[in-house]
Amino acid sequence: MNVVVIGANGQIGKHLVNQLQAHEQHEVTAMVRKEGQKKELEDRGIHAVLADLEGSISDLETVVKGADAVVFTAGSGGHTGPDKTLLIDLDGAVKSIEAAKKANVNRFVMVSAFQAHNRDSWADSPIKPYMVAKHFADDTLMQSGLDYTIVRPGGLQNEPGIGKILAGENLDRGNIPREDVAATIVEVLEAQNTYQKGFDLIAGESTISEAVKKI
Amino acid sequence: MNVVVIGANGQIGKHLVNQLQAHEQHEVTAMVRKEGQKKELEDRGIHAVLADLEGSISDLETVVKGADAVVFTAGSGGHTGPDKTLLIDLDGAVKSIEAAKKANVNRFVMVSAFQAHNRDSWADSPIKPYMVAKHFADDTLMQSGLDYTIVRPGGLQNEPGIGKILAGENLDRGNIPREDVAATIVEVLEAQNTYQKGFDLIAGESTISEAVKKI
Repeated sequence: MNVVVIGANGQIGKHLVNQLQAHEQHEVTAMVRKEGQKKELEDRGIHAVLADLEGSISDLETVVKGADAVVFTAGSGGHTGPDKTLLIDLDGAVKSIEAAKKANVNRFVMVSAFQAHNRDSWADSPIKPYMVAKHFADDTLMQSGLDYTIVRPGGLQNEPGIGKILAGENLDRGNIPREDVAATIVEVLEAQNTYQKGFDLIAGESTISEAVKKI
Repeated sequence: MNVVVIGANGQIGKHLVNQLQAHEQHEVTAMVRKEGQKKELEDRGIHAVLADLEGSISDLETVVKGADAVVFTAGSGGHTGPDKTLLIDLDGAVKSIEAAKKANVNRFVMVSAFQAHNRDSWADSPIKPYMVAKHFADDTLMQSGLDYTIVRPGGLQNEPGIGKILAGENLDRGNIPREDVAATIVEVLEAQNTYQKGFDLIAGESTISEAVKKI
């Protein structure tokens, strides 16, 4: 698959780009916002393109055109200013979905947030605006007609991946290394049993391959 | 009609509640957030209920149950903090839509923002996060199955209403007194030709009744 990673300079995005670049069956295009980021990627032999999620849908359409899949992993969690939450986590995501539709790229993997589908779980969350943005971006994807998968990781850690996860529709809260989130996305990409589904994701005891088969 | 006004203490909301209260064919329920606001309305003989758009859908469902129509005119324009933009203008609106659906209240009038449907018109707007929130709330309403009308007023003025408006799908920007926005909402409530439609609204040369008939 030729995979466009939106948010390639993010913490999950960096792992994902490296893993896709190393993967035999995938080609990666890293979408980044700054010239310096693009150059750094190109210096490592990685195909990179410049585009801004605050720009137009047609710019994004140009980026994804010809790809087999889009992964949206932009955004910076619940701790940016809420204006950016609206403009990136919600509007940037929805524009990416629109761009994929227009470019006839049917496969779309969204990196969402733990329990984003379950409004009751974040009624009193300190990052509620962020959860609202992720919730509506996911809702839009679910209604898009695309072959989507929504990955909802728990608390993100920088520890090296352990390659063992637990995935399920509603899990008790837990943590997971970002490297394992990226590896799960890679596993999910061609797993048709994950189409039209979303799942919570934390560290667990199954190999990623086994866990993804059971989704 | 028994009409629930969500955002009854807002600047348009106050006009709307007064006009509905004075109207022969309508009963109004004013939803407000603070006890003092409720008391002030009740002292004027207006039926008021306490509820918070940051609360649960089931609380809102209780408020709208048995009504014939809901008008959403909460929010404070583009100048609140963007966290409130997400929680009120987007999430509060969508929870109100959900509550109306659950309570089988089919008529829903949304007070939106000028050109909210037209992404290109606010690509560089200083209140873009607000426009994004309104855009997605309107989108959700359009997909809700409710008998909706989306009213998108231009620059809001506190001048007394002149009773003359221009309404249309895409207008050049203009201003309009809040009192005339409220009067247009009252006119729209039972106008079935406005169901499943949205329109820009500014001051103009037609009476409100004539203009609404042509929507």
